[in-house]
Amino acid sequence: MKPTLEFWFEFASTYSYLSASRLSRVHEGVEIKFRPFLLGPLFKSQAQWNTSPFLILKQKGANMWRDVERETAALGLPPFKRPHPFPAQSLLAARVGTLGSRTNEDWLVGFTKEVYNAEFQRGENIGDAAVIAKILEGLGVDAKSVIKEASSDSNKANLKANVEEAERKGIYGAPSFVTSDGELFWGNDRLDRALAWAKGDRLGL
Amino acid sequence: MKPTLEFWFEFASTYSYLSASRLSRVHEGVEIKFRPFLLGPLFKSQAQWNTSPFLILKQKGANMWRDVERETAALGLPPFKRPHPFPAQSLLAARVGTLGSRTNEDWLVGFTKEVYNAEFQRGENIGDAAVIAKILEGLGVDAKSVIKEASSDSNKANLKANVEEAERKGIYGAPSFVTSDGELFWGNDRLDRALAWAKGDRLGL
Repeated sequence: MKPTLEFWFEFASTYSYLSASRLSRVHEGVEIKFRPFLLGPLFKSQAQWNTSPFLILKQKGANMWRDVERETAALGLPPFKRPHPFPAQSLLAARVGTLGSRTNEDWLVGFTKEVYNAEFQRGENIGDAAVIAKILEGLGVDAKSVIKEASSDSNKANLKANVEEAERKGIYGAPSFVTSDGELFWGNDRLDRALAWAKGDRLGL
Repeated sequence: MKPTLEFWFEFASTYSYLSASRLSRVHEGVEIKFRPFLLGPLFKSQAQWNTSPFLILKQKGANMWRDVERETAALGLPPFKRPHPFPAQSLLAARVGTLGSRTNEDWLVGFTKEVYNAEFQRGENIGDAAVIAKILEGLGVDAKSVIKEASSDSNKANLKANVEEAERKGIYGAPSFVTSDGELFWGNDRLDRALAWAKGDRLGL
């Protein structure tokens, strides 16, 4: 059995994009469980923030844009584009992602990558249902029925449960990585460490 | 002439410790300018925070302790010890560090490392003047006269000027790295990137 690693991501998050660009269903022999969630409710409950900390902390936000430019260049990704609005309204994408992850759909990984590419390579507004529909269609998925099911009460409840699970696991930002033994790693900069841990490297601890 | 890199650090900062443990006056052919400063005034003016964000954001704080345990182990450092109090009262250490950096003292790098080792390897209270004095004496420095000069009005003004310079350069956390062409990198995780930039690697940007 392959080792597993949960990849918790928020569709509006720049650093989640960096991790998503690198990951597939299996990466370096580790099975990656794509776990979309919403950061907004966590920011609100943990820090009483009503928007992204990158908007609240202006100096931090300014350097984040520059850092993501540098990091995308270092990863060999297309030039980074700042989306408008930022943060994007990621609710619909998160609902579709939740549906995909709950029903273990083949299109989930492709959908995740394409949403990020639309948002951060082309600057598109992923809060626009037409953008989401086009991505699904490009993956050969019946967009109309998926979006309808994604917007059902039961799927909304599933997304809510995901957010609660994230909070229970100690998550406070995105991306986050959780191993099968509950070790939590925060940030794209910890992806390699999390993969190593998932494969049994305990760093001598 | 060697390329240079400014290393901005706060003596109470766990991730500044990680960077300081790796750096000397010259590292990988880059001249490192040790620039001690205080984060408190920046947190206050930029975010209206009166203490460390790791205390304000409890989930983030909890994971930081674990992360620093892992990162120190990965760097081969002695087991991490959580100091009491946290954050430490770093004012005296910052004043001594400011004096050392303004007068370009040989003992500055050793002093910086020893303060961090006392704080995060042995859990000592670096707000205690006796701890600072002992470190200086261990480096063969006349502790009494250095602490007296560090506490002078002109040196206090120098530290204040350092904090203002940090703010002007866009700094909002520690450690931070600033290249001679003004590129700002935040965090121990960007040390390698900052060194590469200082040596001319523009990542294709």
